[in-house]
Amino acid sequence: MRPSGRALDELRNISMEPGYAKNAEGSCFIKCGDTHVLCTASVEERVPPFLRNSGKGWVTAEYGMLPRSTGSRMGREAARGKQQGRTVEIQRLIGRSLRALVNIEGFGERQITVDCDVIQADGGTRTASITGAYVALYQAFDKLVEQGKILEVPMKGQVAAVSCGLYKGNPVLDLDYPEDSNAQADANFVLTSNGHIIEIQGTAEEDPFSEAQFGSLFSLAKKGVSELCAMQREALGI
Amino acid sequence: MRPSGRALDELRNISMEPGYAKNAEGSCFIKCGDTHVLCTASVEERVPPFLRNSGKGWVTAEYGMLPRSTGSRMGREAARGKQQGRTVEIQRLIGRSLRALVNIEGFGERQITVDCDVIQADGGTRTASITGAYVALYQAFDKLVEQGKILEVPMKGQVAAVSCGLYKGNPVLDLDYPEDSNAQADANFVLTSNGHIIEIQGTAEEDPFSEAQFGSLFSLAKKGVSELCAMQREALGI
Amino acid sequence: MRPSGRALDELRNISMEPGYAKNAEGSCFIKCGDTHVLCTASVEERVPPFLRNSGKGWVTAEYGMLPRSTGSRMGREAARGKQQGRTVEIQRLIGRSLRALVNIEGFGERQITVDCDVIQADGGTRTASITGAYVALYQAFDKLVEQGKILEVPMKGQVAAVSCGLYKGNPVLDLDYPEDSNAQADANFVLTSNGHIIEIQGTAEEDPFSEAQFGSLFSLAKKGVSELCAMQREALGI
Amino acid sequence: MRPSGRALDELRNISMEPGYAKNAEGSCFIKCGDTHVLCTASVEERVPPFLRNSGKGWVTAEYGMLPRSTGSRMGREAARGKQQGRTVEIQRLIGRSLRALVNIEGFGERQITVDCDVIQADGGTRTASITGAYVALYQAFDKLVEQGKILEVPMKGQVAAVSCGLYKGNPVLDLDYPEDSNAQADANFVLTSNGHIIEIQGTAEEDPFSEAQFGSLFSLAKKGVSELCAMQREALGI
Amino acid sequence: MRPSGRALDELRNISMEPGYAKNAEGSCFIKCGDTHVLCTASVEERVPPFLRNSGKGWVTAEYGMLPRSTGSRMGREAARGKQQGRTVEIQRLIGRSLRALVNIEGFGERQITVDCDVIQADGGTRTASITGAYVALYQAFDKLVEQGKILEVPMKGQVAAVSCGLYKGNPVLDLDYPEDSNAQADANFVLTSNGHIIEIQGTAEEDPFSEAQFGSLFSLAKKGVSELCAMQREALGI
Amino acid sequence: MRPSGRALDELRNISMEPGYAKNAEGSCFIKCGDTHVLCTASVEERVPPFLRNSGKGWVTAEYGMLPRSTGSRMGREAARGKQQGRTVEIQRLIGRSLRALVNIEGFGERQITVDCDVIQADGGTRTASITGAYVALYQAFDKLVEQGKILEVPMKGQVAAVSCGLYKGNPVLDLDYPEDSNAQADANFVLTSNGHIIEIQGTAEEDPFSEAQFGSLFSLAKKGVSELCAMQREALGI
Repeated sequence: MRPSGRALDELRNISMEPGYAKNAEGSCFIKCGDTHVLCTASVEERVPPFLRNSGKGWVTAEYGMLPRSTGSRMGREAARGKQQGRTVEIQRLIGRSLRALVNIEGFGERQITVDCDVIQADGGTRTASITGAYVALYQAFDKLVEQGKILEVPMKGQVAAVSCGLYKGNPVLDLDYPEDSNAQADANFVLTSNGHIIEIQGTAEEDPFSEAQFGSLFSLAKKGVSELCAMQREALGI
Repeated sequence: MRPSGRALDELRNISMEPGYAKNAEGSCFIKCGDTHVLCTASVEERVPPFLRNSGKGWVTAEYGMLPRSTGSRMGREAARGKQQGRTVEIQRLIGRSLRALVNIEGFGERQITVDCDVIQADGGTRTASITGAYVALYQAFDKLVEQGKILEVPMKGQVAAVSCGLYKGNPVLDLDYPEDSNAQADANFVLTSNGHIIEIQGTAEEDPFSEAQFGSLFSLAKKGVSELCAMQREALGI
Repeated sequence: MRPSGRALDELRNISMEPGYAKNAEGSCFIKCGDTHVLCTASVEERVPPFLRNSGKGWVTAEYGMLPRSTGSRMGREAARGKQQGRTVEIQRLIGRSLRALVNIEGFGERQITVDCDVIQADGGTRTASITGAYVALYQAFDKLVEQGKILEVPMKGQVAAVSCGLYKGNPVLDLDYPEDSNAQADANFVLTSNGHIIEIQGTAEEDPFSEAQFGSLFSLAKKGVSELCAMQREALGI
Repeated sequence: MRPSGRALDELRNISMEPGYAKNAEGSCFIKCGDTHVLCTASVEERVPPFLRNSGKGWVTAEYGMLPRSTGSRMGREAARGKQQGRTVEIQRLIGRSLRALVNIEGFGERQITVDCDVIQADGGTRTASITGAYVALYQAFDKLVEQGKILEVPMKGQVAAVSCGLYKGNPVLDLDYPEDSNAQADANFVLTSNGHIIEIQGTAEEDPFSEAQFGSLFSLAKKGVSELCAMQREALGI
Repeated sequence: MRPSGRALDELRNISMEPGYAKNAEGSCFIKCGDTHVLCTASVEERVPPFLRNSGKGWVTAEYGMLPRSTGSRMGREAARGKQQGRTVEIQRLIGRSLRALVNIEGFGERQITVDCDVIQADGGTRTASITGAYVALYQAFDKLVEQGKILEVPMKGQVAAVSCGLYKGNPVLDLDYPEDSNAQADANFVLTSNGHIIEIQGTAEEDPFSEAQFGSLFSLAKKGVSELCAMQREALGI
Repeated sequence: MRPSGRALDELRNISMEPGYAKNAEGSCFIKCGDTHVLCTASVEERVPPFLRNSGKGWVTAEYGMLPRSTGSRMGREAARGKQQGRTVEIQRLIGRSLRALVNIEGFGERQITVDCDVIQADGGTRTASITGAYVALYQAFDKLVEQGKILEVPMKGQVAAVSCGLYKGNPVLDLDYPEDSNAQADANFVLTSNGHIIEIQGTAEEDPFSEAQFGSLFSLAKKGVSELCAMQREALGI
């Protein structure tokens, strides 16, 4: 029933390549089917003004798409002189999702910026970004541990994200673009490895949908996130 | 237990004044406690380029806050030369929420812009904006009916929004600012009058929270939206 | 002869509501007929760089219009990414008008920003802004006195503003929009309560006009400002 | 008494060189003492959208200062990405002053842009700009007449501008920078050759000033503008 | 002598992967040592306004760097709201280099935008971009031929680019970052496969250098470009 | 053969007027035929952040064109809110050319900004800017020497620039606009008085050109720069 032939509760082929970017303290090139995102984590020895002399660090995220990552070319945001609303919305979501698990008192007055750049897009770029960003961030923290700058990775848990939706009347896991653009409803779930909620965003694309339908999407998401978290651990060797 | 002394499932004092703005086709000055938002709906006899000659109309929304609507003065977005990420995120949410209920083939090639301007802020400005925007938009459609330009109000249902959150361990309805800034989790629910989902956004402010806790917030939201919808109907006399 | 039926030297119905904005140190919601402006005065414990360690304070003003304050919707300046020339011109005028009466050595190194936001427009928004801004600013200074931070309100006089114009050959006081858009000439007078000049701006809309005609506008303005100043004192209880 | 040794009612040395700019349809390099402004008038065979198919033309103005026209270097507006409030205010004034005398039905659907660029500044740049702009605009119209595109110069009169001020208690004509920066009050007068008002802007720099003082400034201005208009006619050979 | 151990006239390891980007009409992922650039060519069925109804097409280029392509993170241009001078300079160079070889009358009224995005930077990103851009553009033209839209690839020749420099007194080919940041002079050569000049840019980084030294850089460049052109042909199978 | 009737190796009429700008520390109004550029050098007692406490100074350049310096009016960059790519490219070139000869340790922690503003354009504005900028900069340094702030002019040599091109098959010196817009190739040479290279930029406008043709342009440039340097010395009296 799905254009890709996948089962309703089946993720796309996923791969995660930590350390892809030679220059960054942490990085992960994540592929979810034909959606490819390069996530890098950059450590800087400074914090934003509101945290100076607080002993706390900061984690923030930025998101971008290469102009021809998509089916038809998008204008380059740098050339137009501003980021689109969608871009801003997504990078705020990634940042909140990471901060929810980071102990900001655990890595000194440092700022870590996680950049998620979409090299190729086929639906689900924001959830792939979050899943890959966790790996890049973990790697950057791990490097600080190796360098003896901090004692342990200051994260309280593990986070991954996936989208689910109602497609042709059925709840399906991990929408690709052909599904996403025809879904009746879709929801992005940012969950911990034990299924707790960090962020949920659900939207009716056509008619409003019921609490029960939302529940069925949630169940799929828990399954998907659990699998993604296992892959993250494998990629990181933890 | 709540700073305001309200019961856990009690809305703030709500008032809605349709027709507040003399110049607009539709308007509503909504007060949710000390949160005051002026919503106006402006009808224009043109549509964005992607809808020209399609026979369809468009509904969009913009959001703003007066610089001193808040406890300390915010810089004016017009002076800084760009809208903040939060502003963009909110106005996209308002627009999607309205479009989910509007039949865009039912009012010709017209664009309706709903402006939600926060005159005073005490938490919940985005949900108050959506609730008031529905009234302003309805009034604008009704005016088109009165003028004989369309036959009926092209909306498939009724929409209102409310925020709920976990505050000191309890699920509470309709957060005000003192609650919002100390909540463990909060969620915005945009629902129809019969409790179906248009948009849900839930965020852990401290630790991730469980599906059961999310369910208790949802229940409060359905109660609150039901009451808000009754007030909208009363304000509109429908 | 006037569209509103007013006498040539008659102001519109005026009301001033000090303290309208719960969050601001000073505020005034001023209505001049159908022109409604919310003025707030925000006190900050800092000054611009050029005044640091000077012992002097600063007063500045910003101006804005809600998108649908006018007969047809204007684009939102924040969305377009810049303030229009007219906006800049008006807010500079308001700022100069206030600073002309303030003793900047009399309230320490503080900055007061007066925001004038037009909720509804029917001509004369800049003069209404100045008249209301005086009230908001006075209230903010008075609060500093009450808090024991300064000894007295550091203002050397009282200021109000009104527009006059040549309409159908007659000099008239306090133009509303129908008059303003058909005037042969109009002038904005920012005067002290004893009729001295703080700022005068006169413009020929059609043919150049004579010094004698300008004199007749000036006379009307002195009458109007005198009445407005009385209302300000009544509103402030001084 | 004046730093320059001029009499109270004496203009600076003035020169006007029409045709200075080889490429422009009209131009004038005006020197008022050490204030030097290059004014060019550019004719384009198109009008702004709001005038298309109206048979009417448009005249507009832009103003700029070279970064080191002033005593200390100003940041380049193009590099900062926006025009300052003062710049916008001045170019709007120049445009209004010219349009007040132009018959916009008298030169077809053409737009004339008058650029006033300050090469060197010593006070009074906006009034020098207006005086020079008239010459440049006249020359551009005259060229259209020569080319047979219009029958006569479509201007109803002649305009020049000058600033006057209260300096050390005396009313003085044509302020230079040392006077301008110490004046108690100053006013810019844009007048026709017969002394009628196109635009007046008066501002108290220190204490508010009286109607009588304003009158004395006006008298000086009429004398100065009369002399400037004679020089314009001489420069143009009319 | 070179940090990399290469011979003076030795290129880095080069690889070119055409067709890397699934969505683009043409693409090439080029690696010159640790400098990695993704080049995509996007065909659109429209031209800029100045070419409408001319029967001619247009080729343009844009350039960007991922924020952490470099050793320390650069601010994202989209977030800062403008492209840096260096970016603008490079993308103009890429565009000119391609247009020099394209017959713009040979592919109808189409615009092809070549995006060169630096995934990882180690010196020579602009020359790698040009070399890869040729491959992406060729592929896009070839696709139009396959689709029967044009008869042949409308390019008059082949272009590649390489940088040369004076490093520790010796002329060297294909500078990497450690060399580039310590060179006494460097020059970028954009040449055809037969060694003719499309663009040359030479700059003294320390002392001015002689015509003879420039000549020795030119000789190296011709060797390098010749090798790069052979690799382009191999990658394209032509 | 040349439109101007000049010999192939003949410069235009050149004049340089140092000290043209009353307010600047150094200045030069340079005329190369009908190309007129005002260059000013402004000394500020501060350096950019990256040089603070380094004991070093900085030289930078900015470039602009008056809107009607050209044959048809260009939009004003300040009004459009950004500098064009061409502008950015040129001002970077001017800055590099000057810095190549300045000993930045020789004038303390000062910044000198050289502004090159084109008053009238007829081709070759960037090379005229560099030639005039040298004079303005020298004058500013000389003033620091006179004031006893530095001991000698901290420049290691002399720089001038000229463009050469292939026009109707011949190499010609110092292109004017009619030649520039029809050249097959053109190159800008920034050379020292003894013919060494500071910067070279050569571009094929039509077909790629040969190394031999490039050599003939270089020979012309050396002759032209030698003559320009003599005129600079004469203007400066050194």
